Amino acid sequence: MKKGLVILYTGRGKGKTTAALGLALRAWGHGFQVCVIQFIKGRQDTGEAAALRRLQGVDLHVTGRGFLFGPETPESDRAAAAEGWRLARERMASGRYRLLVLDEITYAVNRGMVDLQELLGCLEKRDGRLHVVITGRDAPSSLVEAADLVTEMREVKHPLSRGVKAQAGIEF
Amino acid sequence: MKKGLVILYTGRGKGKTTAALGLALRAWGHGFQVCVIQFIKGRQDTGEAAALRRLQGVDLHVTGRGFLFGPETPESDRAAAAEGWRLARERMASGRYRLLVLDEITYAVNRGMVDLQELLGCLEKRDGRLHVVITGRDAPSSLVEAADLVTEMREVKHPLSRGVKAQAGIEF
Repeated sequence: MKKGLVILYTGRGKGKTTAALGLALRAWGHGFQVCVIQFIKGRQDTGEAAALRRLQGVDLHVTGRGFLFGPETPESDRAAAAEGWRLARERMASGRYRLLVLDEITYAVNRGMVDLQELLGCLEKRDGRLHVVITGRDAPSSLVEAADLVTEMREVKHPLSRGVKAQAGIEF
Repeated sequence: MKKGLVILYTGRGKGKTTAALGLALRAWGHGFQVCVIQFIKGRQDTGEAAALRRLQGVDLHVTGRGFLFGPETPESDRAAAAEGWRLARERMASGRYRLLVLDEITYAVNRGMVDLQELLGCLEKRDGRLHVVITGRDAPSSLVEAADLVTEMREVKHPLSRGVKAQAGIEF
């Protein structure tokens, strides 16, 4: 039995987005059409953006506006997440893709910017060959339930706690 | 302070090699020279191999001969690991690279195919701007100690335990 998987990378450790990017690279290497939507990261100058834009057959959308710190969610961020989610639904329904990455969507879900039930419904109804990769901390239990493969990235040691700054090629 | 990091992805969960590949993609997007050495995987027809061979500035070596199951390590596998390690040392010393991935090298270390003290010595002596990414289960504690960033990929749910076969674009 071969089927499209829902893959969830969660937990507080580093490696969630990078593992999703690795799957995108691997899928692209097999000639699959790939779509990556970044829901929170707002930078357009990341290594992944520069790289993915050079890979023919990869469709990248950076719809985020940067990390949300406070308890309030500005309307502009809500609108950005809504646009990301509109694109995601459209890509899922199109039948054109074999791998779709919803990067950091759990943050948007946990802030009510993307409706969890709607996400679960779209995963359930999707083309059976489409793999969907979801990343972000604090994945809701119903999303863990819906996923086929779940890895928790557990932080054992983090360089930022050792006084090393975020740097190009590693953090972004 | 900006410096080359030693990044270790370990644990039993999926996402270690893919996270390393994601870092390779990100680094390549920033224009860095990247080298990836696969110590155990022996397949040449993986998605990552097809993809990385198309990225100019990425140097890929699949030196592995496939996963080792039994307690014995055949001489041919020892010779393959020795060749991978020779390449790794040469790449580390060359000064040409900004990111080096030693994929699944922990298995080679734990079987005595690559000497742990020699690996630690090479990490210590390397060019300060070179990032080294190490993957594999059961990383020795001295390697955890030497690393700047360590994530344990913890298996929460695995599709192969749900009757789904390994498939192109996801598992390889």
